[in-house]
Amino acid sequence: MERIKLKIEYDGKNFSGWQLQPGKRTVQGELEKVISFLLKENVRLYASGRTDSGVSALGQIAHFDTESDVNERRFLSSINALLPEDVSVRELEKVDENFDARFSVKKKTYAYKFYISKFTRPLYRNSAFRVNDYADLKKMQEACKFLIGKHDFSAFVSRKSGKTDFVREIYDAKIVENGDDIFAFEITGNGFLYNMVRIIFGTLLLAGYGKIEPNEITKIIDGKIRANAGKTMPAYALCLKNVEYL
Amino acid sequence: MERIKLKIEYDGKNFSGWQLQPGKRTVQGELEKVISFLLKENVRLYASGRTDSGVSALGQIAHFDTESDVNERRFLSSINALLPEDVSVRELEKVDENFDARFSVKKKTYAYKFYISKFTRPLYRNSAFRVNDYADLKKMQEACKFLIGKHDFSAFVSRKSGKTDFVREIYDAKIVENGDDIFAFEITGNGFLYNMVRIIFGTLLLAGYGKIEPNEITKIIDGKIRANAGKTMPAYALCLKNVEYL
Repeated sequence: MERIKLKIEYDGKNFSGWQLQPGKRTVQGELEKVISFLLKENVRLYASGRTDSGVSALGQIAHFDTESDVNERRFLSSINALLPEDVSVRELEKVDENFDARFSVKKKTYAYKFYISKFTRPLYRNSAFRVNDYADLKKMQEACKFLIGKHDFSAFVSRKSGKTDFVREIYDAKIVENGDDIFAFEITGNGFLYNMVRIIFGTLLLAGYGKIEPNEITKIIDGKIRANAGKTMPAYALCLKNVEYL
Repeated sequence: MERIKLKIEYDGKNFSGWQLQPGKRTVQGELEKVISFLLKENVRLYASGRTDSGVSALGQIAHFDTESDVNERRFLSSINALLPEDVSVRELEKVDENFDARFSVKKKTYAYKFYISKFTRPLYRNSAFRVNDYADLKKMQEACKFLIGKHDFSAFVSRKSGKTDFVREIYDAKIVENGDDIFAFEITGNGFLYNMVRIIFGTLLLAGYGKIEPNEITKIIDGKIRANAGKTMPAYALCLKNVEYL
């Protein structure tokens, strides 16, 4: 048996998220179909975590096991030749079977893209969120630093079903500029709850729009009440940028 | 009479270029329709220059004259409320009638976006050109510097019809990184010939792929023979980034 690790980029727009669901077009579904066809085996993929419907990835990581003897370079080309144009495997390598794409995750980085303008920007209308022009970017930047550290993020989770531990550690949170006046809120942590990044960005907007002071982020975290945090922002501007392993 | 200057962003994908053409969807056509409707006048727009079918703009500049008394802020909002989502006016201001969007141009900057990869990148498949992974980025960067200066660019024009002067001055030409491993070839000059930027980028690729040495750009310029330059690269990755005035 061999274990294969994949680094995957996808445009989330026309996918019902990562995870396999009957009757829906999912990233896992498209990949398993192509890989199973090529290897003539029923292959099961395990990702670093699900991404929601509409969310994109620059560097999602997944692994699968196979009985076949795979030539990495050729197999990578074969997969990409068969995949639809909104998903692509960027890297493929054989790994030790101690590697687990789900359980060996050390850090993940998400990016939420946005621009600040009174009007929709045609070139970025499908990939970045429009923040109103009266937003104060400095206050948003300042608010970021109150996210860093080990916190109970109960206030930043949409549905608590299935999870009982809401403590996550955030290693870095900042706003970067990407050129063309496009910004990204980038957040790195040891893990993220359901909708957590999208709710955090909604809360940064409260600071940007002057509805809270940047340091009130701490109060919202400590209060553990979902209603005190901001709205769940739309999925299309969110991207799983990077996953690091132990 | 008042003269109004506009800064316009558009996604070129679904336009047959800037210039008005009967029966075709053009940027000029969409803008004139909306502005004429709002002002109840037949308004004619004059841009810094045409952009070809499929080419985008971050900062196209145009002007028009009107007999109406325009409130800049309100009028800008009204225009954007009526425009389709792939074109937007980013700035609008009253200018002196000595300003002419066509004839007062001092410098223009174009950006040609690309990435270097063996495989299509889903998130950038509609906005950046895929350069094969064996390309040498350093050689492309080196080739850029031989473009700078005042040259006869006859070798870099598709159809010479209408033009008799092929001398243009290039002030800057370089490759920049935009994040997410996306690059842009940015070129600033006092003007550009038909398809010139797309042919120049095709010629930089000859250097990147080792088919010419970077300094052979000079020989290609001096030779004035179209066949010695590279291919005309596709329009979708090209963007008129900025126009500066006297």
